[in-house]
Amino acid sequence: MNVSITGGAGFLGVRLARRLLSKGTLRGPRGGQEQIARLTLVDVAPPRGLDDPRVRVVDGSIADPGVIAAAIDADTDAIFHLAAIVSGQAEADFEAGMQINFDATRLLLERARRSGNRPRVVFTSSVAVFGPPLPPVVRDDTAPVPQSSYGAQKLMCELLVQDYSRRGFIDGRALRMPTISVRPGKPNKAASSFASGIIREPLAGEEAVCPVPAETVMWLMSPGKAIDNLVLGHELDAEQLGPSRIVNMPGLSATVRDMVAALERVAGPAVSRRIRWEPDPAVMRIVSSWPGRFDTPRAQALGFEADASFEEVVRAHVADTG
Amino acid sequence: MNVSITGGAGFLGVRLARRLLSKGTLRGPRGGQEQIARLTLVDVAPPRGLDDPRVRVVDGSIADPGVIAAAIDADTDAIFHLAAIVSGQAEADFEAGMQINFDATRLLLERARRSGNRPRVVFTSSVAVFGPPLPPVVRDDTAPVPQSSYGAQKLMCELLVQDYSRRGFIDGRALRMPTISVRPGKPNKAASSFASGIIREPLAGEEAVCPVPAETVMWLMSPGKAIDNLVLGHELDAEQLGPSRIVNMPGLSATVRDMVAALERVAGPAVSRRIRWEPDPAVMRIVSSWPGRFDTPRAQALGFEADASFEEVVRAHVADTG
Repeated sequence: MNVSITGGAGFLGVRLARRLLSKGTLRGPRGGQEQIARLTLVDVAPPRGLDDPRVRVVDGSIADPGVIAAAIDADTDAIFHLAAIVSGQAEADFEAGMQINFDATRLLLERARRSGNRPRVVFTSSVAVFGPPLPPVVRDDTAPVPQSSYGAQKLMCELLVQDYSRRGFIDGRALRMPTISVRPGKPNKAASSFASGIIREPLAGEEAVCPVPAETVMWLMSPGKAIDNLVLGHELDAEQLGPSRIVNMPGLSATVRDMVAALERVAGPAVSRRIRWEPDPAVMRIVSSWPGRFDTPRAQALGFEADASFEEVVRAHVADTG
Repeated sequence: MNVSITGGAGFLGVRLARRLLSKGTLRGPRGGQEQIARLTLVDVAPPRGLDDPRVRVVDGSIADPGVIAAAIDADTDAIFHLAAIVSGQAEADFEAGMQINFDATRLLLERARRSGNRPRVVFTSSVAVFGPPLPPVVRDDTAPVPQSSYGAQKLMCELLVQDYSRRGFIDGRALRMPTISVRPGKPNKAASSFASGIIREPLAGEEAVCPVPAETVMWLMSPGKAIDNLVLGHELDAEQLGPSRIVNMPGLSATVRDMVAALERVAGPAVSRRIRWEPDPAVMRIVSSWPGRFDTPRAQALGFEADASFEEVVRAHVADTG
């Protein structure tokens, strides 16, 4: 069983790699659990803290066909495709977004197809595929209308995953992930970066800027749940997915005010006072186009899970970093 | 006012060209009706019967950047993008479908963007973007899940039109056209080819094969209404479209049995007996994945129209060809 992770040095990629190395097996081409013999991590930066003989590192951009060729071969059974340019960056640089978020995904899927091995491909899509006009609660059959280039690119990739799977080129699954919070590390150019920053920085004794109003509703998932759901996304049988390979993930609906209140309950008012409220129209425009409430019966029937409460999410982050 | 039509030698392209030449004007960049000075028809075959000094022909495939460059320049104000590989062909040849239906559309949109003229682009999409799981009646906000490569490619192009418009690169409109019937000419590789053939061939004294069961429900539009709606799609203000540039077109819902009954009412039982019923699983698989019933309040509010009855459609075809 040979597995590849793109974006393998990112925070989700490393966390997923750790999980797979400790789990040791994944559902293999013969239907049963098989030992993971090789775990290939592809990224522009080397992954840290993964000293394991099964790990192989491919250094470079997924936009480079040579990197894709090194990352996926005829023995690759599973691909977790996490690498992407984040929403704010894809909005600021249209070409870069098309190249990394769309063209590189097409390159990857084409390589997987040409391998002849029909690998399982778990693609991380996003709630950013949705935008106004939106119903109050997004249903499983609500039409996505992206209002960001990131969302448009993710949705186009979903369609490739869907069509490549339907044709039997790959066995793909596109999971529409909520905003991940609390992401460890530094702020990035994702429009949603603040959703982690307003928790992470105050807990680390630093000031954080919140660029959206307190009443902004977010659809959230913790890194731990995201990893659970990515692994489940791989393990499901194609038959369970039926005619659509695209699944809206469950999540937690919370206003930014709710998030800060949870932080305050966990760490006290001195910590939550470290947030400075400075509206940023560019961030607000993107974030306010994303839905904050979903009804996800299909995902839940398939076994995907949401976090129990945002307070629990904050506590898990404190435990992880403490 | 300079207009380009891709697929300009196809039956819809020629018909649209005739309509525009006789109408003489279109809404121009300054908001009012402006004289059409130049009408560029792009196709792999030369258009027939269009002898007009305003007409300019560009001969070649839209997959060729040189052809796109010749078809669209900094003075192009309007583009009707009709050229495509039909559904059956895109299913049989995945690469050709991706190249003509997707890559060439991207080439065209990129050329339009680089022109700096922000042209209006009317893109003919299709009900083939929809597939199971489907509600009994497709709503304006029903999520498309394509079950054919043609449908996936059309939907990916819609997303480009949407994002290019949102970013102000073009002023685009993607119209999801029903199956066009009665199409004149010869059968083609469209899975829906029979929907015209079973009317056209018997009326011409020839035998026709119907590859789907009589109870198959189709969503239909006559060529005349299609042209009306394409022109309206151009004339609408961007503000009327709101945040989504993608519109489900109104149509006629009819079973194949209804269609044949209309033919019989118009031309008699001797004509409708020229249909041979020979199920073709490949055609049935594609056609049965398309929805046969829509509710299209948004399109109707914008002024798009359906035919009154299929009998009227058959009579119009008889009048056209008689």
